[in-house]
Amino acid sequence: MDWSTHATQLAKLVGEANVLTEKNDQAPFLKEWRDLYQGVTPMVVRPGSTEDVSAVMTYAYEHTLKVVPQGGNTGLVGAQIPKETGDEIVISLGRLNRVRAVDPDGFTITVESGVVLETLQNEATKVDRLFPLSLGSQGSCQIGGNISSNAGGTAVLAYGNTRDLVLGLEVVLPTGEIWNGLRTLRKDNTGYDLKQLFIGGEGTLGIITAASLKLFPKPKKLEAAFVGLSNPHAALKLFSLAKAQAGPVLTGFEIMPRIGMEFCVAHLEGARDPMAEPHPWYVLMELSSGSDAFPVRDLLESTLSEAMEAGVVRDAAIASSMQQVDDFWRLRHGMSGVQKREGGSIKHDVSVPVASIPEFLDTAMAAVSAFVPGCRPVPFGHLGDGNIHFNISQPVGADKDDFLAKWDDVNALVHGIVAEFNGSISAEHGIGRLKRELLHEVKSPVEMDMMRRVKSALDPKGLMNPGRLL
Amino acid sequence: MDWSTHATQLAKLVGEANVLTEKNDQAPFLKEWRDLYQGVTPMVVRPGSTEDVSAVMTYAYEHTLKVVPQGGNTGLVGAQIPKETGDEIVISLGRLNRVRAVDPDGFTITVESGVVLETLQNEATKVDRLFPLSLGSQGSCQIGGNISSNAGGTAVLAYGNTRDLVLGLEVVLPTGEIWNGLRTLRKDNTGYDLKQLFIGGEGTLGIITAASLKLFPKPKKLEAAFVGLSNPHAALKLFSLAKAQAGPVLTGFEIMPRIGMEFCVAHLEGARDPMAEPHPWYVLMELSSGSDAFPVRDLLESTLSEAMEAGVVRDAAIASSMQQVDDFWRLRHGMSGVQKREGGSIKHDVSVPVASIPEFLDTAMAAVSAFVPGCRPVPFGHLGDGNIHFNISQPVGADKDDFLAKWDDVNALVHGIVAEFNGSISAEHGIGRLKRELLHEVKSPVEMDMMRRVKSALDPKGLMNPGRLL
Repeated sequence: MDWSTHATQLAKLVGEANVLTEKNDQAPFLKEWRDLYQGVTPMVVRPGSTEDVSAVMTYAYEHTLKVVPQGGNTGLVGAQIPKETGDEIVISLGRLNRVRAVDPDGFTITVESGVVLETLQNEATKVDRLFPLSLGSQGSCQIGGNISSNAGGTAVLAYGNTRDLVLGLEVVLPTGEIWNGLRTLRKDNTGYDLKQLFIGGEGTLGIITAASLKLFPKPKKLEAAFVGLSNPHAALKLFSLAKAQAGPVLTGFEIMPRIGMEFCVAHLEGARDPMAEPHPWYVLMELSSGSDAFPVRDLLESTLSEAMEAGVVRDAAIASSMQQVDDFWRLRHGMSGVQKREGGSIKHDVSVPVASIPEFLDTAMAAVSAFVPGCRPVPFGHLGDGNIHFNISQPVGADKDDFLAKWDDVNALVHGIVAEFNGSISAEHGIGRLKRELLHEVKSPVEMDMMRRVKSALDPKGLMNPGRLL
Repeated sequence: MDWSTHATQLAKLVGEANVLTEKNDQAPFLKEWRDLYQGVTPMVVRPGSTEDVSAVMTYAYEHTLKVVPQGGNTGLVGAQIPKETGDEIVISLGRLNRVRAVDPDGFTITVESGVVLETLQNEATKVDRLFPLSLGSQGSCQIGGNISSNAGGTAVLAYGNTRDLVLGLEVVLPTGEIWNGLRTLRKDNTGYDLKQLFIGGEGTLGIITAASLKLFPKPKKLEAAFVGLSNPHAALKLFSLAKAQAGPVLTGFEIMPRIGMEFCVAHLEGARDPMAEPHPWYVLMELSSGSDAFPVRDLLESTLSEAMEAGVVRDAAIASSMQQVDDFWRLRHGMSGVQKREGGSIKHDVSVPVASIPEFLDTAMAAVSAFVPGCRPVPFGHLGDGNIHFNISQPVGADKDDFLAKWDDVNALVHGIVAEFNGSISAEHGIGRLKRELLHEVKSPVEMDMMRRVKSALDPKGLMNPGRLL
């Protein structure tokens, strides 16, 4: 059967307007935002309900069609982009965008997978609750993609990864069957916790169509400080002090280098350096509490003054308004985008044990600078989670393509150092297509074999996002 | 090959002293503490290392021997007891009791699976850290069993289930292969999160031999109150108040009925009622913080006075010493054991959404009292997790066996009510043998099929704890 026949059949299931076969219509679904991949597909199918997804998947299973599920198309490892071979259909989940249930008393919300993260955050706010997942692409990424990639972001320190926020899932399996695993219980030991396979499964085991998620008290008090420091060792000391003082109300702890600040001030509209003098490193520290009864401001001030006295901190600016808090975070969230404006950037999303961060940064920055003289490391990220986006901008005036041609070699160098620290080569972005060839280098044959067995058990025809992850 | 040949061969692998074939030697491994099961086995094998476990499992796989892994033998659903058929060998993990690494700065500990929970708690205390898992059997249960059953306990409210405390696992697979999944990272998105299958897997997919676990700051301040209330509706209101005020420092919230207090006073040595007057219901509320900077006592007092003013609370006693805190908890932890002294007890370990607890209790208590006139419901447990141990003691003077003969019917009645509230028939104890026949009643065919596929993928010969869970 040819593609046009498949398109006609699928149009009968989801409506003609929801099977995109024209190049122009397909374009937004095929372009990867970092320009690392350009997809080709016979059609983008846009089901409007779980039953639609089931019908499409049943058809695909019957006709052995390969399928690429896609959310907001903001993934960073190419898992959501169909291959250049042009034999994979895209199932876009954007029309599954209903909020099914909100339970503020039970601190839960149940939504379909195509709900945009920011919409979900706003739905929680409406009932005086917090959905804590927060990341740069929140205006367009969808919760189904967040779950499939076990997204991290800036609130992991206090609230955990996306995995920790999921209570239950509804999933369409590769056969087209619907698994209703939507639950809102805090405790349930009745068999294997199957949802865990789909969380971070990168769409290789099934299509998430809905999720029951945890909500939290909306912060009543929120304070943030922008801190200048000499080096990452001082940042780690500040983190230890802050954890000891503020414990569970320490909700953000992000590290940034001076060069990242310079990039932001140069390229991010309206951005300005919050400090009077330049500092080699910065930390954005946030404390917040859902209860009025906590002395959040006092905790921030006492932590900072203790750090000042101990010589850990060079200077600190405490936000005097929510506008200023937002400005601080804008610098942090802008840090990835501004690198585009400085030419080529070779990226790593790595983690090491938290206490090893300073030594890891020293070692890795020295190594890449020796390997590519003049390159400009811009490592930033979630110090409290041991997670650094170890990005390296090209030397000033160098040829972009020449620099990017070193991608694999630089990766190998950095990942080798990560391995020495018992770290991970993908802390939050996943494996997808970008790191698939690296996976067997960091996983034992036993673990690779276990993953393949699980994959075969749930996707016997190998139709779900083939060649991603595994 | 006969059992004595197998015993000889296995003795070559682990030493003769570690293959128990005599009835007397085997006895402690075969007796289930609630007297629900009496196991029979050709031998109890006691490996001393991960390599030993691997060698034993390799042998078992080769000779198609069924295997029952066992920790501290404190499980509540019979998963750890070999069947009466006598054709399952027991692998007892008690000799794998080394602490492999303690990292107080990184807040992690790596231990072997045979380490007793209380030993693990003490190891954390030695370095001024907290391992929060806490339950009645902590003096003899082992961490491997806690992980295999995803144990709950009294600290779930603040720290999560055992699942939430595990960073990495080392597992011997049914084939005898060793999977080294020991990691101490807070973020790692490199493939399926396989450890999740073994957590709560009840030993049906492999044998956990070691685990890397999260540690927390040792509470610097800890306060507890024993509160008398009119009914569970008031208890839920108190919980909402306490959450709003104390948020993350609310570390315990347990509900108990008057009759449970009476049982404790009658049967628990040295136990006494902390309140001057009797009350229909009690709550044990604990607040604690790893930081000196939190006003824990103030938060407790302000929560209670707000509750008093609102008429939610009848009376409250705040512990004036750590001894009194321990006394409060002793009443709570004793609540399960004392029921033995009051004749037969039919048990349920159920959860419902937190906000449904009062209505669930009203409905279920009325239903069982109508079904078995004179029976004495003793429901207690973790209100903040929606998890109630809905136990029912026999009518005074009734025949124990007659009463226990109603076990299945009473279960069906209570589980039916649980289902109406979208709850779970096993919130923390698991499925094991006790609830295996019930599982297909609460799981869809799709979910049962997925579980069987996962089981076959990892344990193709079906040797691991057969007939438990699935």
